[in-house]
Amino acid sequence: MDKPYVIGIDVGGTNTVVGIVDKRGQILKSDSIKTGKHSQVEDYLDELSDLIDDLIAGTTTKDQIKGIGAGTPNGNYFTGSIEFAPNLPWKGVIPFAQLLEDRVGIPVALTNDANAAAIGEMTYGAARGMKDFIVITLGTGVGSGIVVNGQLVYGHDGFAGELGHVIMRRHNGRLCGCGRTGCLEAYSSATGLARTAREYLELKPDIQTRLRNIPADDITSKDVFDAAMAGDEMAKDIFKFTGEMLGEAFADFVAFSSPEAIILFGGLSKAGNLIMDPIRESMERNMLPIFRNKVKLMFSDLKESDAAVLGASALGWEVRN
Amino acid sequence: MDKPYVIGIDVGGTNTVVGIVDKRGQILKSDSIKTGKHSQVEDYLDELSDLIDDLIAGTTTKDQIKGIGAGTPNGNYFTGSIEFAPNLPWKGVIPFAQLLEDRVGIPVALTNDANAAAIGEMTYGAARGMKDFIVITLGTGVGSGIVVNGQLVYGHDGFAGELGHVIMRRHNGRLCGCGRTGCLEAYSSATGLARTAREYLELKPDIQTRLRNIPADDITSKDVFDAAMAGDEMAKDIFKFTGEMLGEAFADFVAFSSPEAIILFGGLSKAGNLIMDPIRESMERNMLPIFRNKVKLMFSDLKESDAAVLGASALGWEVRN
Repeated sequence: MDKPYVIGIDVGGTNTVVGIVDKRGQILKSDSIKTGKHSQVEDYLDELSDLIDDLIAGTTTKDQIKGIGAGTPNGNYFTGSIEFAPNLPWKGVIPFAQLLEDRVGIPVALTNDANAAAIGEMTYGAARGMKDFIVITLGTGVGSGIVVNGQLVYGHDGFAGELGHVIMRRHNGRLCGCGRTGCLEAYSSATGLARTAREYLELKPDIQTRLRNIPADDITSKDVFDAAMAGDEMAKDIFKFTGEMLGEAFADFVAFSSPEAIILFGGLSKAGNLIMDPIRESMERNMLPIFRNKVKLMFSDLKESDAAVLGASALGWEVRN
Repeated sequence: MDKPYVIGIDVGGTNTVVGIVDKRGQILKSDSIKTGKHSQVEDYLDELSDLIDDLIAGTTTKDQIKGIGAGTPNGNYFTGSIEFAPNLPWKGVIPFAQLLEDRVGIPVALTNDANAAAIGEMTYGAARGMKDFIVITLGTGVGSGIVVNGQLVYGHDGFAGELGHVIMRRHNGRLCGCGRTGCLEAYSSATGLARTAREYLELKPDIQTRLRNIPADDITSKDVFDAAMAGDEMAKDIFKFTGEMLGEAFADFVAFSSPEAIILFGGLSKAGNLIMDPIRESMERNMLPIFRNKVKLMFSDLKESDAAVLGASALGWEVRN
């Protein structure tokens, strides 16, 4: 029997959002709980499975659900576990998929947020019909989901696709949250962009900019975006620097898997051409000649509020029943 | 019917070597012709197909050959063509697979040398049973063949896996044959190693080394190897520099596809621990913590004189009949 629905779960540091999704990527019903409310993962999972039961009860029946897909920080597809996620209240290795499956009686698959985004783009979004593409998520960090030959690249241990942690500056690079220096994420995440703003303000004291109206430590990527949209030259330069670094990195990614497209997803991608123009210029300039003018640069076309749940839900179509 | 043999063709700049290979990777019979003898590709292919007919006649019959695999410079698996190979006498795009298939009546598949090496390792060599690994060829250039989920990564256009051309030095990098600067190949190929030797001799005039007995422009990687084996400190340092650069690059490759192993193949890999020790130390030091002490570093275990033909032949098992 061809089951018509899947459930997507987006486990974020603050909220856990759950939605019932049909084959065309329509979210029939969704709701959320607070991720951090329970210090014991069992209590959290009890509340989560109650929510899932309620959502199903209002929409369909359990035997119409093909599977549950979850996108979580540090989610490992192979083990179904959340492994040492720094931003969640539960420490160590949590066998999330198994624990949830035991409660709701529907098969559960799990992966990290960026991989879920890539599956979402392939199933419902900008990458429909593509077999080789890369999704880059530009949020607090820089994440990636890589698809090769129509399959997610999980690698030998389930942790492939850490493209936020390729080294862009080998000497005197910025300290990254991973403990090393010079990672892409330290420059081209939303946090990295705000850091660039603070650096520019300090290094270029003579340049007029409305960013000086904000206490340096409080500057966010949104502030820089607003300033750039209002014509502020330094703010535009900050986006240019951020995009150029991404373009350099993308040129190397292309040498690896020669994708049909690189798709931008999340926070910074809302900056539109402010970020895309320097990425495109820098990627083409830094690329090996045989790859030039071949790779599409795109924004995700999934509605932002739905994207994380949709991406996670797409994994539900792939579970083994 | 299960055909027991394949034919492997290694098209090199100097020689074209052909072998008949069985399922265990034994070369039953092989022979070669000069690649550069004919300025017209049709004449070359006539001689090549005559050679293939002769090899078959002495061993088996045509209907026992499952397919022909060819490893060629700039070979594109998707199109079956050799595209703009700088070191071959025939210019532009050569539909090699089709032209050869028309002559011999056996299906022909083609890819570049490094991809052929990766398929060879997976079929007969160090990567048997692995689904995720990378082969790095260290010869005149640096090439790569990447396997993900048990499949060669060809990418959208057939040109994926150009890992010799990721950028290792973004400022004041060495000029590379591809026209850009700072590529891995400019440092860590056999040619790059000899270049490092010339640089060290010039930059460190006070250091004693037997390399000064050779005219600088004539120094080869073999000379540096011989000196290092005789205990020459500068020669050892040159291998250390070359290996450390490879280790930095490998750490980034691991962030991409999280392979079970990285396998070294070709020229420089003969240097053994002289090159492997600094690679290992540098790769582990530069790697994202979650990947540390997981990735095997290995040498190809295919007999060198046979490896190119074996690798190409392995593609013959995959042709569609």
